[in-house]
Amino acid sequence: MASPLAYPKTKGTTVNRYNNRATYDVKTIHSIVNESSVLHVSFAPDAEDPFPAILPMIGTMGSFDYPSADLDEPLDCYLHGYVSSRIMRLATSSPQGLPVSIAATKVDGLVLALTPNANSYNYRSAILHGYASIVEKTEEKLWAMELITNSVVPDRWKNSRVPPDSAEMQSTKILRVKITAASGKVREGGPHDEAKDATREDVTGSTWIGVVPVVEKLCEPIPASQNKVGELPNYITDYVAEMNAKVEAYALNAARLP
Amino acid sequence: MASPLAYPKTKGTTVNRYNNRATYDVKTIHSIVNESSVLHVSFAPDAEDPFPAILPMIGTMGSFDYPSADLDEPLDCYLHGYVSSRIMRLATSSPQGLPVSIAATKVDGLVLALTPNANSYNYRSAILHGYASIVEKTEEKLWAMELITNSVVPDRWKNSRVPPDSAEMQSTKILRVKITAASGKVREGGPHDEAKDATREDVTGSTWIGVVPVVEKLCEPIPASQNKVGELPNYITDYVAEMNAKVEAYALNAARLP
Repeated sequence: MASPLAYPKTKGTTVNRYNNRATYDVKTIHSIVNESSVLHVSFAPDAEDPFPAILPMIGTMGSFDYPSADLDEPLDCYLHGYVSSRIMRLATSSPQGLPVSIAATKVDGLVLALTPNANSYNYRSAILHGYASIVEKTEEKLWAMELITNSVVPDRWKNSRVPPDSAEMQSTKILRVKITAASGKVREGGPHDEAKDATREDVTGSTWIGVVPVVEKLCEPIPASQNKVGELPNYITDYVAEMNAKVEAYALNAARLP
Repeated sequence: MASPLAYPKTKGTTVNRYNNRATYDVKTIHSIVNESSVLHVSFAPDAEDPFPAILPMIGTMGSFDYPSADLDEPLDCYLHGYVSSRIMRLATSSPQGLPVSIAATKVDGLVLALTPNANSYNYRSAILHGYASIVEKTEEKLWAMELITNSVVPDRWKNSRVPPDSAEMQSTKILRVKITAASGKVREGGPHDEAKDATREDVTGSTWIGVVPVVEKLCEPIPASQNKVGELPNYITDYVAEMNAKVEAYALNAARLP
């Protein structure tokens, strides 16, 4: 269900192509980010380099000031991942924060139509613009580390050795991105063919059309050789089962829509 | 197996963090691109906008001049997707091509260690830098459209209504990206904990460690309500089975490595 809040449209985030699929709804956009196992973060090139930087990173939406905030409320994006020294150096040296673009995309199905031009994906994608700063306050940093750890497997933080020691706190950096604008796109349903193909019996009689649903599946967990805990804990078993049921239900429902 | 060709290291593509996971091998990088259902393409911001553009697009590696070239040979990246008018306008107005960065990332497993700081993902990622130009020659454009269609489902092109008519040829644009540099990263194996945790029985006795393998699974295809072909064709059934077996074998093997 749509939330009351929407992100403002800016020149860079307004969807022009297939704008019937566009959304600026805060809850939808935050959900796409939180359900993506990887985000792609881009920032402007150096003066001598024409290519923008682009990095895969782990991240999640959250509010340190209002930790109980829901997905339909204003949230920051916290990032942790393959943080090159370059992004950290740039974020440190930008008093207003480093301008970054964040992309989250989930493929939910391969949509096969009568002709290649009408093929598509079922998908959910979001693009966020914001200013990235390094989290300096220890309390906020610890909170964000727990948030990000638990975004990968809920309750993992408290079920492993915490808190991080001082060496770990020093070597880890967390970025907080204040979001200024964002947009999303959602495509669901079966193929949409034009009448020029749908009315041709030679085409419809020979071309299978439909959707191959796609899900990111969590397989049966495999213990490390040095694992000493005999039984797989419930918080992992339950999460694997719940996530698989949730993403499959979404993809199958999206595929069955007209 | 590594190929003899490697991409040159440039300032923007040299891996500094976790550089033991780095690869510049042409075959590895091309494979990561071709096995990714979505690529993220970034290009520099407008003068008045600090945020780089970032778009999810469909693409694949290929060589129009040497169509039988293998993955370990020089290839271009052909892109088709949510092509905003902006990227097309910029590519058209850049005589040398528009500088773009392309990212491909596949998550293969959640790696759970004794402490959050040692958690990781098994993953394969690639970043490519190159110059994007619009494919103008009809012969190359048709070839690339077939290549991209068949990268989603092999043999789909010839099993649907082709060739595209003139309206479809006009409304579709394909970008060819000449790659100038690229790098990849591959992480596989179980968790690597430090001795400070691995020697503590209270930690090892209470914390399950291992890998939750992650796969992009293709589910049972769902026919569209208007589908007229009774039986699912073999080229689709076979592809779904082969892809699922391949990605699961990769993720499980990666999880079981030390």
